[in-house]
Amino acid sequence: MKPIQVGLLGIGTVGSGTFAVLQRNQQEIARRAGRGIEIAMVADLDVERARAIVGEQIQVVNDARAVIANPDIDVVVELIGGYGIAKALVLEAIAAGKHVVTANKALLAVHGTEIFQAAHDKGVVVAFEAAVAGGIPIIKALREGLSANQIQWVAGIINGTTNFILSEMRDKGLDFDVVLKEAQRLGYAEADPTFDIEGVDAAHKATILSAMAFGIPVQFDKAYVEGITQLAAADIKYAEQLGYRIKLLGITKRTDKGVELRVHPSLIPAKRLIANVEGAMNAVLVQGDAVGATLYYGKGAGSEPTASAVIADLVDIVRLIDADPAHRVPPLAFQSHTLAAAAGALPVLPMAEVVTSYYLRIRVADEAGVLAQITSLIAGANISIDAVLQREADEIGGEGIAQTDLIILTHDTREGDMDAALARIQALPSVLAPITRIRKEELN
Amino acid sequence: MKPIQVGLLGIGTVGSGTFAVLQRNQQEIARRAGRGIEIAMVADLDVERARAIVGEQIQVVNDARAVIANPDIDVVVELIGGYGIAKALVLEAIAAGKHVVTANKALLAVHGTEIFQAAHDKGVVVAFEAAVAGGIPIIKALREGLSANQIQWVAGIINGTTNFILSEMRDKGLDFDVVLKEAQRLGYAEADPTFDIEGVDAAHKATILSAMAFGIPVQFDKAYVEGITQLAAADIKYAEQLGYRIKLLGITKRTDKGVELRVHPSLIPAKRLIANVEGAMNAVLVQGDAVGATLYYGKGAGSEPTASAVIADLVDIVRLIDADPAHRVPPLAFQSHTLAAAAGALPVLPMAEVVTSYYLRIRVADEAGVLAQITSLIAGANISIDAVLQREADEIGGEGIAQTDLIILTHDTREGDMDAALARIQALPSVLAPITRIRKEELN
Repeated sequence: MKPIQVGLLGIGTVGSGTFAVLQRNQQEIARRAGRGIEIAMVADLDVERARAIVGEQIQVVNDARAVIANPDIDVVVELIGGYGIAKALVLEAIAAGKHVVTANKALLAVHGTEIFQAAHDKGVVVAFEAAVAGGIPIIKALREGLSANQIQWVAGIINGTTNFILSEMRDKGLDFDVVLKEAQRLGYAEADPTFDIEGVDAAHKATILSAMAFGIPVQFDKAYVEGITQLAAADIKYAEQLGYRIKLLGITKRTDKGVELRVHPSLIPAKRLIANVEGAMNAVLVQGDAVGATLYYGKGAGSEPTASAVIADLVDIVRLIDADPAHRVPPLAFQSHTLAAAAGALPVLPMAEVVTSYYLRIRVADEAGVLAQITSLIAGANISIDAVLQREADEIGGEGIAQTDLIILTHDTREGDMDAALARIQALPSVLAPITRIRKEELN
Repeated sequence: MKPIQVGLLGIGTVGSGTFAVLQRNQQEIARRAGRGIEIAMVADLDVERARAIVGEQIQVVNDARAVIANPDIDVVVELIGGYGIAKALVLEAIAAGKHVVTANKALLAVHGTEIFQAAHDKGVVVAFEAAVAGGIPIIKALREGLSANQIQWVAGIINGTTNFILSEMRDKGLDFDVVLKEAQRLGYAEADPTFDIEGVDAAHKATILSAMAFGIPVQFDKAYVEGITQLAAADIKYAEQLGYRIKLLGITKRTDKGVELRVHPSLIPAKRLIANVEGAMNAVLVQGDAVGATLYYGKGAGSEPTASAVIADLVDIVRLIDADPAHRVPPLAFQSHTLAAAAGALPVLPMAEVVTSYYLRIRVADEAGVLAQITSLIAGANISIDAVLQREADEIGGEGIAQTDLIILTHDTREGDMDAALARIQALPSVLAPITRIRKEELN
């Protein structure tokens, strides 16, 4: 049978990896897929660089629409990224009856509903294993491997840049700014790292996982997003002393009231396997009611790891390319027509309604009665304290007042109640600096 | 559409879990599968117990063949286990045109070639996610999620009983026999634990993973199998001091000469994530040439975790039940007709041809020159030493000779060369007891 004909839109890091892996492993892949997979055409603005990568045998153009318009192309692989031109091209490819593979989490988290609907109407596949956690087959695991389960929650280290930074901060006791520069020098962080360090990239991925876990539409606009730029080396050190590690987690959880969808730094028990995921590695922990906890670990980015996911999607498409669309797995795991109704029953909750526990670091005057004042305000808000770590005075402030850090761990409480209590504590004269509040997840 | 009709053969631990999860999550599962899944008939020798589990609405019989003969049944789920009657029933179900889901690793590791051929000829599916690592979707990950890769090796903790025993031996410093009794009391080990503690169960699973990783037939008869019954608490302690943990690993590796397929206790670096998989949990580490290392972790046994895998297979079957068999994923990941030829190119190597590194514990007389004698015998066999740990004399033997343990870590060497060196060392008069030899895997 003629190999399936693939057109690449963009041949940067992931595109060149996809080309290299398809070349190197073509026999192995065809032995699995039952048919060859061939990159037949590449569109890239830098035609010369593209040609240097793919050689003379493959047609290279600078106009992505020429790939979409080519009637020989069966599948379009979108590796441009972003919400802009990529959206138009994906929709045009679908309209032209092409199957689409994309690594574009931003696009799907924001415009997924429109894109999946268009693909459904046209009877084509939009596959996106590469959009979350790179080479780890987490989309397939969640969508097919765990299909027996009511998923209870998903918590993942799904941004390698921030995990690298947090690992380095802990290992070397350095502050965020210093490590960010190192990460940029090593290529683990981009020149403009905003999407990574502010949690936006992780929130895109968490949004997709949330939809697939609970059968609701993608709702990036309702995600709570907090990055790691405010984390101090001191918090990482205190967390360590209390038996925790700080990780940037993407979390989505089903509760009686709705769905939590949030990205923020989290204390997690050091003894959990996921707490020991270091450097730029990714890991996703999924809790299902039948299977319990399962964890998926690997490289979340990079040329060939991401290519591995792109090609797995291509193999899936090869198998079903001439089958009735009814035989396909729905893109978000649940039959598409059921998503909207589920969104009514399972709304994404505002952050004030989230229930979690907390780590608080409060800079106080080292005076008698301060601890009692603070703990009584917490108790008054019906928040139960799990542990208190009171440091020796470590500094004499400007007015001759000894200062110290007061560390408090709480039990589960509503975020809105915690906000109210924190406002009252912050107003105390003996509280000398803005309170640091980091959420804590036991993950059990 | 009418729900798919499932017949269960055997309703013990996994069967009752399958029934319970299908009942509890029926809406969620149907929202994914696009069609209901219904257990319509159950065969079990203990009809009364079966009826107590499934109630009055479902037909219960004591004759498995009545399920196979029932024309309304679409899928037969075999949960009897073993090579005997289960084999006959699976082949009869296939012959009757039923799709089959099985958790029976022993059956597939030994008779897989015959069973998959029969299913292929009849155009039915034999699915077996539950056969390896319980609820962890490792079959799907290896078969579909990593289909872009040339798999280089797979190493897994794929027997919960032995991992529980090893975890307890390490935590409590106890010997094997003591912990085995505790494991039996807690239900982590069976009354006859032979298949688990001798490594046979892990070898069944490793055999299946090996076939799927490299596209070769299942060849259980060529697996090297060594259990944990000879492990001493001392070895676990010494390994710890050297920065290693001891785990029973199922390992399969592609080399230039062929495929390694082996189950034995292994030292692995304590800092590896998989070294920290404790208790009855399972984890499988897969190294692919594109993706690098990925790890899959979760419960490897138990009623509902295993049911999770059985039901995932049922959902896959629902999707493709009336599709052309060409659209299906081949059971062992590679197109069936290519397996036999690959076996010629990639033979399973005899253990003497395996290349790995070693931990040796040698009980010696604490005399001048013993270390030099032993290390020169090792060097003479062209084996390179990585580290030596020489203990203080800890015992005075019967003839007044002080004794001690000499611990040696080697670099990679051919097992046959190590065997020859060990025979020479064992023959030295200053070597006072049988040498302990444990293989060491760096897993990088």
